Amino acid sequence: MTAIRNILFVMCDQLRWDHMTCAGHPYLRTANMDALARRGVRFTQAYVQSGICGPSRMSAYTGRYVSSHGATHNRVPLSIGEVTLGWHLRESGRTLALAGKTHVIPDARGMRRLDLDGHNELAVLLREGWFEVVDRHDGHHSEPHNAYAAWLRARGYDSPDPWTDYVIAVDTPDGPRSGWKMRNVRHPARVREEHSETAYTTDQAIAFMDGQADNPWVLHLSYVKPHWPYVAPAPYHAMYGPEDCLPVRRHEAERGPDAHPVLREWLNEEVARSFQQDEAIATVRPAYQGLIQQLDDHLGRVWAAMERLGRWHDTLVVFTADHGDYLGDHWLGEKELFHDCVQRVPFLLYDPSPEADATRGTADDRFVEMIDVVPTILDALALDPSRHVVEGRSLLPLTRGIAPSWRDAVFSELDWTFRGARRRLGLPTGHHHAWMVRTARWKYIHWGGGLRPQLFDLASDPDEFFDRGADPSLEPVRVDMRARLLRWFEGLKRRTTITLEEAEFRTDAHKRAGVFYGEW
Amino acid sequence: MTAIRNILFVMCDQLRWDHMTCAGHPYLRTANMDALARRGVRFTQAYVQSGICGPSRMSAYTGRYVSSHGATHNRVPLSIGEVTLGWHLRESGRTLALAGKTHVIPDARGMRRLDLDGHNELAVLLREGWFEVVDRHDGHHSEPHNAYAAWLRARGYDSPDPWTDYVIAVDTPDGPRSGWKMRNVRHPARVREEHSETAYTTDQAIAFMDGQADNPWVLHLSYVKPHWPYVAPAPYHAMYGPEDCLPVRRHEAERGPDAHPVLREWLNEEVARSFQQDEAIATVRPAYQGLIQQLDDHLGRVWAAMERLGRWHDTLVVFTADHGDYLGDHWLGEKELFHDCVQRVPFLLYDPSPEADATRGTADDRFVEMIDVVPTILDALALDPSRHVVEGRSLLPLTRGIAPSWRDAVFSELDWTFRGARRRLGLPTGHHHAWMVRTARWKYIHWGGGLRPQLFDLASDPDEFFDRGADPSLEPVRVDMRARLLRWFEGLKRRTTITLEEAEFRTDAHKRAGVFYGEW
Repeated sequence: MTAIRNILFVMCDQLRWDHMTCAGHPYLRTANMDALARRGVRFTQAYVQSGICGPSRMSAYTGRYVSSHGATHNRVPLSIGEVTLGWHLRESGRTLALAGKTHVIPDARGMRRLDLDGHNELAVLLREGWFEVVDRHDGHHSEPHNAYAAWLRARGYDSPDPWTDYVIAVDTPDGPRSGWKMRNVRHPARVREEHSETAYTTDQAIAFMDGQADNPWVLHLSYVKPHWPYVAPAPYHAMYGPEDCLPVRRHEAERGPDAHPVLREWLNEEVARSFQQDEAIATVRPAYQGLIQQLDDHLGRVWAAMERLGRWHDTLVVFTADHGDYLGDHWLGEKELFHDCVQRVPFLLYDPSPEADATRGTADDRFVEMIDVVPTILDALALDPSRHVVEGRSLLPLTRGIAPSWRDAVFSELDWTFRGARRRLGLPTGHHHAWMVRTARWKYIHWGGGLRPQLFDLASDPDEFFDRGADPSLEPVRVDMRARLLRWFEGLKRRTTITLEEAEFRTDAHKRAGVFYGEW
Repeated sequence: MTAIRNILFVMCDQLRWDHMTCAGHPYLRTANMDALARRGVRFTQAYVQSGICGPSRMSAYTGRYVSSHGATHNRVPLSIGEVTLGWHLRESGRTLALAGKTHVIPDARGMRRLDLDGHNELAVLLREGWFEVVDRHDGHHSEPHNAYAAWLRARGYDSPDPWTDYVIAVDTPDGPRSGWKMRNVRHPARVREEHSETAYTTDQAIAFMDGQADNPWVLHLSYVKPHWPYVAPAPYHAMYGPEDCLPVRRHEAERGPDAHPVLREWLNEEVARSFQQDEAIATVRPAYQGLIQQLDDHLGRVWAAMERLGRWHDTLVVFTADHGDYLGDHWLGEKELFHDCVQRVPFLLYDPSPEADATRGTADDRFVEMIDVVPTILDALALDPSRHVVEGRSLLPLTRGIAPSWRDAVFSELDWTFRGARRRLGLPTGHHHAWMVRTARWKYIHWGGGLRPQLFDLASDPDEFFDRGADPSLEPVRVDMRARLLRWFEGLKRRTTITLEEAEFRTDAHKRAGVFYGEW
């Protein structure tokens, strides 16, 4: 057997679990995602640890729940005290390369405290969360000084900010318009397809793989799409029509008088009001699908490069996304809350080992969490699993048909302090968190601060329309869910500065350390 | 009014709450603790966050619960990512001086990761948890190379390890013996009283105060006594007899067939077996009281120095301990578990402000936690309270008679992974934690891993003899306690890398940051 030498960790941004052909989408043609699913295992029940980019990605990069790593929302830095995949790899002499988006924010206060805010190599690595940057492009705000902007200018996109003026702008019969306005995304991007973000990031990744020759590598290929702005280049902008999209899933009960108070406020966010219009759904969903189609086509280039370089036999491939997108479901837009269209993500795992041959092309319904990525990668490379700090589990026993006991619930969190909904409910800044416990049958959402919980019976209500969080007959279910949540809190790994081996060595070891208390 | 300019934070080690005259001890004569209680407020219900030195002190130095700071047991380093009082002070141009013990262990792995393991000033500070060391002496194992050892050698204690050979050794009619053997502590230390740890550390503190002249200062005066080895110098070793000690509090029910499985294993620890002998209690308790008497006498020297230097009008004084001591109560020795004799500590707070005049000499029965020390100090010095990271509350509203709503429970934790009891129960290394919720009436102890809880009704059973953790009639109490514990977990401050002001500034602020998602 050839050992696994390389890792390709592909992340999409805001890609719903149900937007792959292999996951049942009736119109999308994701031939290359499907090809990966045939090569490996498709995990049908994969969940993120938070339904928004920053905290979800920090869970992906640390293997830890949000309550453990503390980067609870976008632009909340990951503490300098947290350990990421990049460091785990460096401890073993490997590096973690990046092409694309990470959403890593430097812990400027922590770095200043430790005199680490200089301009040396270490400071650069710390600012990037221990990624070695092949190319970074976060793609959700103007980055006029990054490499992609310079690359575009070199290709004739004459602007101080070509991302704003070309990549997320569209050509209309009335002239250029901004793609920030969702009504405009029926029009094509002003950037040529081969110069779009997805094409550019794919180019960077392939060039990186080419450049490694036979040196082993770990690459995070991290697409910013199909995340908003939902601007697709031609021909993808017009590849799908509203009739090619999934039906919107929403119910009047969700905005009725019994709606949960937080949800009610969320329904008043600008993005929700926009997506409550049928025209917005009919405009955005086709563009969103076009972006996915484009991404799938470029994945095909990556797979071809893998083939050309002879990398399929010694490379583990993870394909997933940091969260989904409401797209008008549940009368909402964007993400953050706890419905499956946000929390559940695509998750394809290609394990090249012969031991995994028996599971190729299968679907596995066991629960996967985003925190499983780090331990899976460490396991594949036979590196120290760092069990004292990593909270996820390697998935290789699943691809290899070794069926251990497995989790029967997944957990996700939201720090909603930063949302206007919090202010409109009259709550002070503070710390406002919610937690989701999802089992095969139930989804329980625990809101702090005296707010009632939400509860969905997924057996009778798979669309999550009917919130039974106040139903007296279901109190036993809520009690059980709270007990699960309490056990989950208990199990978080808070002792992270020594290994389990060190803990074992120190057990009952005071006399060996020269301490002889208690002798009569 | 004169502003508070100085802080004297006095910590004793292993001093039980009930071993002060002002707390009702019928035999001890703690004139100087009592004098401080008359000058300030005696908090009668003060609790530590863990019943063992390391984690309790890290809570005292960070203002955070153990589950938040992660230094869960002795010799578990505080993560380089955690912020301590010393740093809070430095951010405001102040320093935190140390004379005595801290139990701080460098986060060597974290420092190595951040290239901070050199020999510069920063590395020294980090290894000390941001204390500026006037003198450090931890006093629970041999420290042959520290300043105290050199100081002793200069005074004629001719030994490579004078602590072992003189300070914790005793003179007996049969020659010198080690004070590690508790049977020997009826004899006097081989060190002269004025050269003992308590005298030495007091000297260091007074010299520090003298040296500051009128410069403001913050000093942690941290005594290693009355912690074991229970060796007192003459005349203190013989100042009390067994008849001058509190009666031992233990009951056959505690070691009966219904004893909690963890407690049952703890009863087999060597120290517990030693203290199950009446002779051990009759030998150790008098020595323990002698050490307290000595400590109180030296406190008198500190108070006199404060008087001589004119510091009583501008210095806030905190006097407390990191935990108590079983001393044979409950058939146990040492500490760690959750009985009040371990978890409850002395807590005296002298607030020099005129606003506190009305509370001088009073006892306050409201719940205090060790995490309140940091915010009290920051408040007294009018420094940023760092509410995004500090979990305790300033006590100055209590000394000043401003009665806000206050907590109705305290929380403590134990990581018992490191104890032989864990192995004897057949449990793997892992993470084994327990949590205590104590209200005015109930004490609930939550053991993870499927172990049943403990529950004591302090109204009918103030001595905590009768564990009702399995009593069916009290299930509603346990449900309430678990709900409190869950709320406590929810409220831990996990988002520590940005301030609350930054969080407020960023609320609903995506458009100001150049992000315009959701516009139709």
